[in-house]
Amino acid sequence: MIRLNNDYCFGAHPNILNALSSFNSESNPGYGLDEHCKEAAESIKNICSLQNADVHFVVGGTQANLTIISSALRAYQGVMCVKTGHINGHETGAVENCGFKIIASEGKEGKIKSEEIEKIAFEYAESNIKEHMIEPKMLYISFPTEIGTIYTKKELEDIKKVCQKYGIYIFVDGARLSYGLAGEGNDVTIEYIADISDVFTIGGTKCGLLFGEAVVITNDELKKCFRHFIKQKGAMLAKGWLLGIQFNEIFKDGLYFKIGKNAVDLALDIKKAFVKKGIKFDSDSPTNQQFVILSDSQLEKLSKKYFYEYERRFDDKHSVVRFCTSWATTKSDVNELISDIMEL
Amino acid sequence: MIRLNNDYCFGAHPNILNALSSFNSESNPGYGLDEHCKEAAESIKNICSLQNADVHFVVGGTQANLTIISSALRAYQGVMCVKTGHINGHETGAVENCGFKIIASEGKEGKIKSEEIEKIAFEYAESNIKEHMIEPKMLYISFPTEIGTIYTKKELEDIKKVCQKYGIYIFVDGARLSYGLAGEGNDVTIEYIADISDVFTIGGTKCGLLFGEAVVITNDELKKCFRHFIKQKGAMLAKGWLLGIQFNEIFKDGLYFKIGKNAVDLALDIKKAFVKKGIKFDSDSPTNQQFVILSDSQLEKLSKKYFYEYERRFDDKHSVVRFCTSWATTKSDVNELISDIMEL
Amino acid sequence: MIRLNNDYCFGAHPNILNALSSFNSESNPGYGLDEHCKEAAESIKNICSLQNADVHFVVGGTQANLTIISSALRAYQGVMCVKTGHINGHETGAVENCGFKIIASEGKEGKIKSEEIEKIAFEYAESNIKEHMIEPKMLYISFPTEIGTIYTKKELEDIKKVCQKYGIYIFVDGARLSYGLAGEGNDVTIEYIADISDVFTIGGTKCGLLFGEAVVITNDELKKCFRHFIKQKGAMLAKGWLLGIQFNEIFKDGLYFKIGKNAVDLALDIKKAFVKKGIKFDSDSPTNQQFVILSDSQLEKLSKKYFYEYERRFDDKHSVVRFCTSWATTKSDVNELISDIMEL
Amino acid sequence: MIRLNNDYCFGAHPNILNALSSFNSESNPGYGLDEHCKEAAESIKNICSLQNADVHFVVGGTQANLTIISSALRAYQGVMCVKTGHINGHETGAVENCGFKIIASEGKEGKIKSEEIEKIAFEYAESNIKEHMIEPKMLYISFPTEIGTIYTKKELEDIKKVCQKYGIYIFVDGARLSYGLAGEGNDVTIEYIADISDVFTIGGTKCGLLFGEAVVITNDELKKCFRHFIKQKGAMLAKGWLLGIQFNEIFKDGLYFKIGKNAVDLALDIKKAFVKKGIKFDSDSPTNQQFVILSDSQLEKLSKKYFYEYERRFDDKHSVVRFCTSWATTKSDVNELISDIMEL
Repeated sequence: MIRLNNDYCFGAHPNILNALSSFNSESNPGYGLDEHCKEAAESIKNICSLQNADVHFVVGGTQANLTIISSALRAYQGVMCVKTGHINGHETGAVENCGFKIIASEGKEGKIKSEEIEKIAFEYAESNIKEHMIEPKMLYISFPTEIGTIYTKKELEDIKKVCQKYGIYIFVDGARLSYGLAGEGNDVTIEYIADISDVFTIGGTKCGLLFGEAVVITNDELKKCFRHFIKQKGAMLAKGWLLGIQFNEIFKDGLYFKIGKNAVDLALDIKKAFVKKGIKFDSDSPTNQQFVILSDSQLEKLSKKYFYEYERRFDDKHSVVRFCTSWATTKSDVNELISDIMEL
Repeated sequence: MIRLNNDYCFGAHPNILNALSSFNSESNPGYGLDEHCKEAAESIKNICSLQNADVHFVVGGTQANLTIISSALRAYQGVMCVKTGHINGHETGAVENCGFKIIASEGKEGKIKSEEIEKIAFEYAESNIKEHMIEPKMLYISFPTEIGTIYTKKELEDIKKVCQKYGIYIFVDGARLSYGLAGEGNDVTIEYIADISDVFTIGGTKCGLLFGEAVVITNDELKKCFRHFIKQKGAMLAKGWLLGIQFNEIFKDGLYFKIGKNAVDLALDIKKAFVKKGIKFDSDSPTNQQFVILSDSQLEKLSKKYFYEYERRFDDKHSVVRFCTSWATTKSDVNELISDIMEL
Repeated sequence: MIRLNNDYCFGAHPNILNALSSFNSESNPGYGLDEHCKEAAESIKNICSLQNADVHFVVGGTQANLTIISSALRAYQGVMCVKTGHINGHETGAVENCGFKIIASEGKEGKIKSEEIEKIAFEYAESNIKEHMIEPKMLYISFPTEIGTIYTKKELEDIKKVCQKYGIYIFVDGARLSYGLAGEGNDVTIEYIADISDVFTIGGTKCGLLFGEAVVITNDELKKCFRHFIKQKGAMLAKGWLLGIQFNEIFKDGLYFKIGKNAVDLALDIKKAFVKKGIKFDSDSPTNQQFVILSDSQLEKLSKKYFYEYERRFDDKHSVVRFCTSWATTKSDVNELISDIMEL
Repeated sequence: MIRLNNDYCFGAHPNILNALSSFNSESNPGYGLDEHCKEAAESIKNICSLQNADVHFVVGGTQANLTIISSALRAYQGVMCVKTGHINGHETGAVENCGFKIIASEGKEGKIKSEEIEKIAFEYAESNIKEHMIEPKMLYISFPTEIGTIYTKKELEDIKKVCQKYGIYIFVDGARLSYGLAGEGNDVTIEYIADISDVFTIGGTKCGLLFGEAVVITNDELKKCFRHFIKQKGAMLAKGWLLGIQFNEIFKDGLYFKIGKNAVDLALDIKKAFVKKGIKFDSDSPTNQQFVILSDSQLEKLSKKYFYEYERRFDDKHSVVRFCTSWATTKSDVNELISDIMEL
């Protein structure tokens, strides 16, 4: 069976594993206060052209999200998010369980529109019963989005303008950042993400690491006592250097970006095959996740050789499924899939 | 100035005030463990034809809502609600601050549709990644709704069917119950509300009391340690008998229902005047709240004599405002408004 | 039966009830934005010699406590409190349920000692693993305490010094403030309480009102968006003017202080009788609550005519019970008790 | 420098690292639903002689603790714990931040006494104002304790009796379980821990793994929807099989127990040296942590070659510090320390 259902079904990129092994018998101070974490933080700041950012490392994405949001907001403030946002639908209400409202908006192609933000922020700003309402104080966007799309530079500029107007923090969830940056037609750099965000994450788990997400805080207001929040939320890894080592390694020689490029190229090959075959997509994704609409018989055929992720029924005879490449996907597996697609 | 902006801008119905005065020098056990509360609870159970319900009294509506929801749900469960639901937009995120997700749905005319509930419940029931999702375990509906509409018996039957199918609790917020029951064309009784609910409230604050909401729990699963939750949430009144006395009084000789009838009759008189004048409504309400769309010049004229509640801009030249009657509204005030409407 | 078990077993002082009645048919804006609340706030500021305080009114004490603490602290901060503190033992974990740790300290005679505060604050200040610990950021003290004792000016000065040194907010719970100020030997004024506090409450429920606690915020840092917290916690009374009217009335002609004086005088008469009889006390209280240690046979006799509050077993043959006076206690009831005590 | 400050300052036992490497290119389903986790769970159940337990794996100890407690308790229930308990002092209020009160008790030698539990439970059980109090529903104990001591079988039996009497869940935190079981004079087996607990953890991070704690739930009441809680709290590892692989490996050929034995033997050698030298201890620990009271000059000497953990000032001239062995400690390092101790 060839596993193309997600981008976290294999261990780590060999370089990462080697790095972890080579430092295994080195002793280190705990809780992320070691030299590896410091180095990795410096490396990330350099890559993002940041002077003053705080960089922290946590194990997982939900941890990163709930810690960031809990730390940034007061109880009467909430976070805006497109309906399909990961925090809204697939983290078991983690944000609400921390006490914060998610203000979900319809969006389009998995992206929230600047006008939607404007509308929500304006309604609050103009209200004369503000104390009965949640102040929309943070915006959560994913780059790339949960359905594989990416914001254009123009879209992010418009969003930034609205957020500045209303004093709204921008939080970019980069769980799949390497794949977004490598997206076909992408006109956004990691420096740009860093520049428009108040806080953002750089995903490791899905991009070559065994595990780990880097939290980069660029807004001074969000830096205070962040490590208290990490610990309180159970997100502080005792052997924190394991995260530092991995992030250090992944940014050597641009490995993080190469991984993204390679996976996206393979995903687009798969996409082309589906297009050629006249098969429709649930979203038009230029990144490593491809959401296709397949008939029951097509699925039956493919399911014999491939793991894909089942998303949902589309109609009587079709379903939406995901094919997903990663740093671990091989050209030969993809070629096999392509020829099987052409046979459908 | 004539105050028609809401239904809680006067003190209490004279009978209520008299009752409070007459018991002022009587000593009582605290925290709702007195005879007045017991009597009021019995009276409510009789009126609702309930045998086994638990009845509690709290001071306010937000208190009632957050206590009920916190008590009924576990952390991984959430409450469904129409977008315009009071808990979703006007309680400063109280429910989320207690840790629970509100699953907001579009609805129609302020009412959630049984198909929407079915869709949300089905998505969870069918999911193979349930642990990443919030279980939709409770439904919150308001009777009447926040925009003055009322559910028909047929609608409630359909809702009940879906909820039973998926094991979803029904919570009816009756903050304005007396006005809903008196609604034009209403085909639902208080017994019926009691019958289909797992828990519901009977609003006092807006219906003749100084303050107070009765919480009626009919489902045994929701009864356990409810008083612990009341206390923990700060919703336990030290001199609890003040609530018992008021609820006792309001149900004597059907006063609660008469109050509703009278206010709705006056509201419908106002409505007719607006209709006659060709003025449009933002919602078609058969109850004590009328949401009308008035031009800036019309508003300017009316604002000289009347307090109404400003809702929001409708377009360049119009806004939505609310005129609201209550137990305290007089026929003469309403007649004055009607003749002023006819002059617009 | 004569009810001396607590100070909240009767309605309101007649002046209060009259005031409420006289404004019953006056219409008012809701949620505490009315003129009565404004006036009452001004009156409180005058009495406390405060220029810049924010004054809010809520219905109950637990509400006041949980709202104040939730508003003042961030998630990684906690509140220090003596073990017998009301928030620690008798509010069903309300503070923790809002997410905050109570750091309970042994204390002496119901009072926390400045050295205890110093010790807790020092331990945190000196720690090199602060992020694993809760920052002690607020001190909660009750005046008078839960066991009837009162802090001396000297004690409060010492406490203030430590709190200033470590940047700790002082929150004085004045649920029974009038009785504390009237305490025998008390050398503290309401202005002094206001001066050393960052936030404090003036209790109404137990001191002549039907219900109501005033929250007085003197530290600017604690003022921001407090009304959002009030609403979110369900502590915002729709007909807020009911609180304004009552607090306005209770401070007219020093009524609040007279009530305290009268009740304490009566309590001390009771105390003297017990002393004369050689009966021991569980705490040496100069205020309206007297905690006495009575034998089973003594209790049996008194229980025929008096309600007292049972506290706990003291030993095989004795229990601790509370006799409590209030604004409503009469001289004749107390005299009757005294002669019965002398007969024990 | 020789690092003896804690038991989590090195990577993983070589067997663990090898196992992780060998499965690196194997694809697996995510979130702990893989075969490695299943196998590891079976292995744990066998070792503990459990038939019906649920076994889950999370990355860290604080995660395990907050997830277990949040899942087991309702909002009005709390967890008892000795003052020095890890959840009480070193998890940044994680439990309270989840909404739950910790009822801290003085204890003795780091252990809570059955009489203390009885007292707390009895006070609640006998109270006639239960709804104002937190129900003590869970007991948290650590084996070994935070100061290196261990409960005897007799102590655990007494505790179990009280907990059964009052319906209190027992949660044993086994973050250092291997060192506790290997403790000098220990008369408790892992089966016994499993038998008396309703839920317990088996620590990996400090006992040879890179990271990871196993949660073993033996009481059916605590099993429901536990994976929902894991996900909501951010404690679900995407590549869950990394935990399964490690726990599988550590229980092969009794490695987990050998690791404990070896570290404890070395710690006791250190202890003997200090004893011989007449140096006093802050607690009498039979396990891998030794808390010694050293003078400033002694510390200065040792600090040139050794990392120890500074605990706190003891008096003017002495401090308490920890020397801690682990699976990674070598005989030669310990011997060097011993000869340096003898030179002090």
